[in-house]
Amino acid sequence: MPGILGLLAYRPETARPLGELAEVLLRGDSTLSRGERELIAAYVSRRNECEYCSNSHAATAAALLPGGAGLVGQVLADPDAAGVSGKLRALLDLADLVRVDGRLVSADVIAKARTAGATDREIHDTVLITAAFCMYNRYVDGLGTPVPADPAQYAAGAQVLVEHGYRPQ
Amino acid sequence: MPGILGLLAYRPETARPLGELAEVLLRGDSTLSRGERELIAAYVSRRNECEYCSNSHAATAAALLPGGAGLVGQVLADPDAAGVSGKLRALLDLADLVRVDGRLVSADVIAKARTAGATDREIHDTVLITAAFCMYNRYVDGLGTPVPADPAQYAAGAQVLVEHGYRPQ
Repeated sequence: MPGILGLLAYRPETARPLGELAEVLLRGDSTLSRGERELIAAYVSRRNECEYCSNSHAATAAALLPGGAGLVGQVLADPDAAGVSGKLRALLDLADLVRVDGRLVSADVIAKARTAGATDREIHDTVLITAAFCMYNRYVDGLGTPVPADPAQYAAGAQVLVEHGYRPQ
Repeated sequence: MPGILGLLAYRPETARPLGELAEVLLRGDSTLSRGERELIAAYVSRRNECEYCSNSHAATAAALLPGGAGLVGQVLADPDAAGVSGKLRALLDLADLVRVDGRLVSADVIAKARTAGATDREIHDTVLITAAFCMYNRYVDGLGTPVPADPAQYAAGAQVLVEHGYRPQ
């Protein structure tokens, strides 16, 4: 099984909290849409150069966002040129700092996100989504998991995630 | 509340899976001792320069390992000079690579860990403990949490963790 799927099957005791965390962060109650949260996850994973996670969550974001794969591709290539809200743009900037090192987050960065309309809960969740994908990316790459043989599997996997979510079935 | 404690209280929905993951990885059934796993967590956090997490888990490792704070201090300062088993030494090397980027883990590094006696489960769990602390460290530092006013709080916190574990009470 590609990516994290084989690891979740190998160790069900850790699969449970790993799935629950993704479920709460990416699909639970939030003022950020599910598509926006998948986009943050895809962006962090792409910047961490984790092929499996970035393609999986890019496909899921594309399935959820009105802008589809076109918008997601733009954000991953160059968020400055992409047509996203000022708030989401500020949260992506915050994510890219946390991704490298949490200590890079300055009061200015938080002030910018707030000025752009981000709430404390949205700032909290962006930091934790980013931190969580720094974990998932290292887990998937550190154990040398394979990527899907056929890239069409990402879109198929996204449909399963959109319908059933992240809790182990 | 210092470090991760305030964050866990702020968002109970994410506190649950974050606590469950630490409980399974650091205190669940394993052929690595609880002290060895706390030492890996402390080592990763120290290398990530996360003051709160490294001091918390160093204190917990010191409370659990026969070598106490002396051994833990040696490992954090220079694992090559510390009196730990060849297997634990190899797992610390693996952890330090995953900490930077999962893609740095080579077949050689895994072969060395196996030759030193590490099982597949121990290798898996070391990678996931490391990845998880790359998350906890970024969460704690990215949201600018304070460290304890009195360093003696780390030892007191360690006693609570040793007795009650990581699940939200």
